[in-house]
Amino acid sequence: MGSATPPYDPRQFEGLTFHDATARFRAGSDTPSAYLERCLATIARREPVVRAFVTVNEEIARAAAAASTARWQAGAPVSPIDGMPVAIKDLLETKDMPTQMGCEAFAGNFPKRDNAAVWALRQAGAVIFGKTVTAELGGSHPGPTTNPFDPARTPGGSSSGSAAAVAAGMVPSAIGTQVGGSIIRPAAYCGNYALKPTQGGINRGERQATSMSTHGVHANSIEDMWQVAIEIAARAGGDRGCLGLIGPASPPAPVRPERLVVLETEGWADLDSASKATFAAVLAQLEASGIALLRRADHPFIEALERAVANGRAVCGAVTAWENRWGQRGIVDLNPGKVSQRAIAGLLKAEAMSPDDYRVALMERDAAQLRHRAMAPIADAVITLACPGPAPLWSGDRPGEPIAPRPTGDFVFNAPSSMLFAPAVTMPLMSVGGLPVGVQVMGQMHEDARTTAIARWIAGNVKPVLG
Amino acid sequence: MGSATPPYDPRQFEGLTFHDATARFRAGSDTPSAYLERCLATIARREPVVRAFVTVNEEIARAAAAASTARWQAGAPVSPIDGMPVAIKDLLETKDMPTQMGCEAFAGNFPKRDNAAVWALRQAGAVIFGKTVTAELGGSHPGPTTNPFDPARTPGGSSSGSAAAVAAGMVPSAIGTQVGGSIIRPAAYCGNYALKPTQGGINRGERQATSMSTHGVHANSIEDMWQVAIEIAARAGGDRGCLGLIGPASPPAPVRPERLVVLETEGWADLDSASKATFAAVLAQLEASGIALLRRADHPFIEALERAVANGRAVCGAVTAWENRWGQRGIVDLNPGKVSQRAIAGLLKAEAMSPDDYRVALMERDAAQLRHRAMAPIADAVITLACPGPAPLWSGDRPGEPIAPRPTGDFVFNAPSSMLFAPAVTMPLMSVGGLPVGVQVMGQMHEDARTTAIARWIAGNVKPVLG
Repeated sequence: MGSATPPYDPRQFEGLTFHDATARFRAGSDTPSAYLERCLATIARREPVVRAFVTVNEEIARAAAAASTARWQAGAPVSPIDGMPVAIKDLLETKDMPTQMGCEAFAGNFPKRDNAAVWALRQAGAVIFGKTVTAELGGSHPGPTTNPFDPARTPGGSSSGSAAAVAAGMVPSAIGTQVGGSIIRPAAYCGNYALKPTQGGINRGERQATSMSTHGVHANSIEDMWQVAIEIAARAGGDRGCLGLIGPASPPAPVRPERLVVLETEGWADLDSASKATFAAVLAQLEASGIALLRRADHPFIEALERAVANGRAVCGAVTAWENRWGQRGIVDLNPGKVSQRAIAGLLKAEAMSPDDYRVALMERDAAQLRHRAMAPIADAVITLACPGPAPLWSGDRPGEPIAPRPTGDFVFNAPSSMLFAPAVTMPLMSVGGLPVGVQVMGQMHEDARTTAIARWIAGNVKPVLG
Repeated sequence: MGSATPPYDPRQFEGLTFHDATARFRAGSDTPSAYLERCLATIARREPVVRAFVTVNEEIARAAAAASTARWQAGAPVSPIDGMPVAIKDLLETKDMPTQMGCEAFAGNFPKRDNAAVWALRQAGAVIFGKTVTAELGGSHPGPTTNPFDPARTPGGSSSGSAAAVAAGMVPSAIGTQVGGSIIRPAAYCGNYALKPTQGGINRGERQATSMSTHGVHANSIEDMWQVAIEIAARAGGDRGCLGLIGPASPPAPVRPERLVVLETEGWADLDSASKATFAAVLAQLEASGIALLRRADHPFIEALERAVANGRAVCGAVTAWENRWGQRGIVDLNPGKVSQRAIAGLLKAEAMSPDDYRVALMERDAAQLRHRAMAPIADAVITLACPGPAPLWSGDRPGEPIAPRPTGDFVFNAPSSMLFAPAVTMPLMSVGGLPVGVQVMGQMHEDARTTAIARWIAGNVKPVLG
């Protein structure tokens, strides 16, 4: 597909991890400074094609890594992620780098303060050194990032740069944010592990947020994914009004599920046959290991949940469009010509809504959450795809043609966990046509640790499948 | 008390209202333009002492009033509040006036966009013409506003200017905001009616907000109070994730309650004897009209609720301090010397908290809400004071002396409705020592209309009491 990149093979792929480096830091055979230099070298090599970053500040990074190196050498790291390079989605404010939100209206925007999650990462000794490309304002208008496994394809969005930077080995972990599908989908297209926590699991701090907006973590291992999330939550807690992510200080041990609900979602009907067959092979391994798989025909509650999420994209879309309405109108009016036509089209739809349209969407969301809670006694978790097949081709809008509706891919498999406020973990267990396709586990609200433990068991016991 | 202002007598006081002006607009004997000019004349006369406003833009106001006058003369007003001058607390953004938040760090801040509620008011034809003084950042550090009934006393806060402007007849209605007690307390000290809606009842739009922050309405009548609130909610709905204020398009008819719970709150023990006796005389009138009054000794659920709110100030304080922590740190660090020592002292307390301290406060809040829900089958509403006696004297901080803890008064009677997310209406039914003291009715979540209807019955059937 117009690329010299070799096909993705999840059995072979070795992503850059951090949790296994700390023993070397302690032993003195490696240092955070050296680790950082390897990351910077990878960025230098791959960034011209991948274009994951808006801003990289090597000077800040080197100073932070040197301080971490000294702590490790003194035997006094402040956390298990001390010295870990972490990239930050460019929606989150950072005191030492601009926050430009993928939107011309925010070009040069530099509020010089840290988002609560960024503050917590620094407290934990992480090396904050770059801001990753986001689709415009966290929406669907794409930035320049390409898929590290095929530059003709989207990395997904809106956490495009975070997913791609992790996939390209530029960084072991990155922060993303999700409202509809903006963490799990790009992670799935890029072969990441990722956690979209329970709604409100990680403190969003200053960031203007909607009722479904959530910070989350991209990584190349479940260990790093969990460790980054829990280090943030241990220091900054959850979002306003939320208990936030609570769990063990180290990655939870694998837990073998007894029963899993296989959720089709509204994405099943349109899914390509190769992805269907590949996912079936994943499920067959689970069944072979004695795990019971329950589908919509097996229990009326599952059928009820399927129906409740069958309109998920519309529900998420309505809720979010309404909640962003006044903020986006202000941005558009004050910055003529600096917001995409794609975003403006969404704003106009929001402005055609009434308060009751929004209320009905909230009621649908609430009703779906009730049906999901009813899964708790039926199964240990839900399993489904994390994206509708491999990342689609994307070469940019063409002047004169209608605006493509979803250039960063379709969030059809992500709307459920978003509207259900449920923790979701994607695992790189499949490739289809030489490209990554994620498998997703979704748990009950506040069961982030248990969901991670189940994902860890699955990732450790299912052989990745090529389709 | 150092004032030429005559003592406040709730039996005599005639506040400026709007709902009774529209018949004259329709008949042509009055116009919104003439109404506005009377408001501006009152402002010119009283503002030098009251100091309710940070910004008044007469030009914008006159243009809006002229447009409204034309609509009324054409028999085509866009709402019952078309032409109503409404003042906006200076925490809410307005596209045509600065938003300075009572904080030197925001001097000249002019984001040139409308808060969702302000947008809705303009849509309804209201005349937005001024920004009212807020205590710094909505906290407890006071601005220059004085109590219209005694300039040596605080008007209360943080909606100081909104409460004072309504009390001084400068404007028939003003928007306030409450987190702990910032609408109901100043309204009570200033003899306003005011609605603090169910949490999330009115869309806060762009405004950074905590989990207990709520827009509300100050007015000189229940009719105006309700009409302003419902006109906003009909257009902008509630806050993100909330159904928002729902109710009749006109002020709800009075509803006589059968049973009321008299809530002491943690404020009772320290309340002055004159306020106690005056409140007792209000309650006696209710009993004389056949309404059953239930107190903590009458039902174990009421005792349980009293205990759950007995720590209300601490719970509200902990929740809000934590949620403001990162935002305020950013403001303080970026604006050295431009945030009050009072606010910084609060920030330092917040920074000494752990995520678990915050979580425990949330649990206490949740537990209190459960106890309040248990009131629903027991009584129609809760009645209590809206402020701990008359407004305290305040002449400013004195250099070299310790910072006074609550110069805008104590929110001890307001913490309950805030932490319970409950709608609350204050009514000017008492004076103590020649100063207003409000009586408060509190309903179940989402029962804003019913709470207003009960307040309307009480206000119409209880003779104000002088103590």
